[in-house]
Amino acid sequence: MTPSTSTFSARLNQTAKLVEATLEALLADNARHGEAARPARLMAAMRHAALGGGKRLRPFLTIEAARLFGSEGQGALRAGSAVELLHCYSLVHDDLPSMDDDDLRRGRPTVHRAYDEATAILAGDALQTLAFEVLASPETDADPALRSDLVLGLARASGLGGMVGGQMLDLSAEGRYGSVAMDEAEIRRLQMMKTGAILTFSVEAGAILGRADASARRSVVEYGRALGAAFQVADDILDREASAEALGKRTGKDREKGKATLVDLLGLEGAKRECGRLVEQADAALAGFGEKAQILREAVRFVVEREV
Amino acid sequence: MTPSTSTFSARLNQTAKLVEATLEALLADNARHGEAARPARLMAAMRHAALGGGKRLRPFLTIEAARLFGSEGQGALRAGSAVELLHCYSLVHDDLPSMDDDDLRRGRPTVHRAYDEATAILAGDALQTLAFEVLASPETDADPALRSDLVLGLARASGLGGMVGGQMLDLSAEGRYGSVAMDEAEIRRLQMMKTGAILTFSVEAGAILGRADASARRSVVEYGRALGAAFQVADDILDREASAEALGKRTGKDREKGKATLVDLLGLEGAKRECGRLVEQADAALAGFGEKAQILREAVRFVVEREV
Repeated sequence: MTPSTSTFSARLNQTAKLVEATLEALLADNARHGEAARPARLMAAMRHAALGGGKRLRPFLTIEAARLFGSEGQGALRAGSAVELLHCYSLVHDDLPSMDDDDLRRGRPTVHRAYDEATAILAGDALQTLAFEVLASPETDADPALRSDLVLGLARASGLGGMVGGQMLDLSAEGRYGSVAMDEAEIRRLQMMKTGAILTFSVEAGAILGRADASARRSVVEYGRALGAAFQVADDILDREASAEALGKRTGKDREKGKATLVDLLGLEGAKRECGRLVEQADAALAGFGEKAQILREAVRFVVEREV
Repeated sequence: MTPSTSTFSARLNQTAKLVEATLEALLADNARHGEAARPARLMAAMRHAALGGGKRLRPFLTIEAARLFGSEGQGALRAGSAVELLHCYSLVHDDLPSMDDDDLRRGRPTVHRAYDEATAILAGDALQTLAFEVLASPETDADPALRSDLVLGLARASGLGGMVGGQMLDLSAEGRYGSVAMDEAEIRRLQMMKTGAILTFSVEAGAILGRADASARRSVVEYGRALGAAFQVADDILDREASAEALGKRTGKDREKGKATLVDLLGLEGAKRECGRLVEQADAALAGFGEKAQILREAVRFVVEREV
């Protein structure tokens, strides 16, 4: 481990603790929430889904991108936590019996295993809603134009043309709705929608909060796209190489389901070269930011070198 | 049928056509949606869920409440359609096998019957996302403060402390998580969360769009609460009295599941008196608006007198 990696990990872990505390507050029993009390079972399932684990990479990206533009403090932490809530909802629904049918997530029972299917569906639904509530709340930023921009960005990244659409394509790729042979461009599109769009928005949200000008925002989005693509290729490599124990979830699932990944099309070495190319692309997008963007350069390296 | 009812029905039907056209445009294949194309199967399932039926009561309330404050045009139609998308998502998820396990909705196969369970879950998810996207979009209103207010209001009405929380309580009321005996106050709270909160927000959204002052907004919210409560008592009465054919869905479900309703606690005649009381309460809330609010007075009567 190089000294730089060690510093990066420390900063990532430190941010994860702040995110955990923010999520804990948002999902606290005594949180204000209109007049109605919150049903205990649903609340417990949402807490199971959102608390106690994860690298919190998405909020980290929001917070560091905001810092690049001089924005520090609660706003980025809340916006990043909203993206994390959205991400957690997607994991809960993806794990359901009718989708990927997973029993383990981060080494713990998935929500439908710890509770039941109906509760898991509702917990995911309410986590999605809470993500938008947090972004639209004045506590996130005093400027309503900025809040609307955040809501719109998260919605576009996570709906039909983004994350949920990508999950639909992913289920189709298993052949459950008829035989599908995807080429490289189609796999890339699926991955950009399913995971890339939210990762890209995580970074863009920081630029929005930091009131970046149009050109700087475009550069940051370009960085986010390269990072998102690198994340997914690295995920495919991990799925092929790592053990279930290290990942805290089943591995080799894609192969089991006969689903083509970039590793199949490019080979293991080819996929690793692709990761290297994407890291360079991410660096290039940050060229104009100099030393200030060092942590984001390290983030994309962390993403491709991670072991879980 | 009184002449007034006939006029009201005509106006409701006319608005439903405008809403249908708006939803059709929002769910059109060629709609702009970032760079990514929309997966055809998911889009088809969302269209199945959202198009081709329903009284469109929620958008009607938004549009008529906005008109009360002099706001006409696209904004209320889009905001009302967003509430309808949210409502449609909740129906898709409520119908799922692990929830109410319904095969029919508005006389047609439910989404998980017409497609499959995974597709239905994703279609519901993406309909929720689209609702927030529409509200945050500048096309709904040029003022970002107003848009943020709409997003926040819909999120609060539909999440943990509102609709989704109410559905969780409703599942618990069936006894699936242990025996539950609900008293009248608990049933009212469940109903206020499950259906009342969104109906109330439908009306409040009109006040937001019409830039109503705080006092007028409170009056309209009070009207919405009475209407929401009346809607649910009327629903309980219908569930007991009407035929499956007329409703286009199964009836007597609550009794089947051993779930207590207000009809059980108050009796059929008591429930009908309660409806009458709620209509008066809705009228009283509108007292300050004079003749202009006549259509909203008729709306609450329509809600309690409807046959489907």
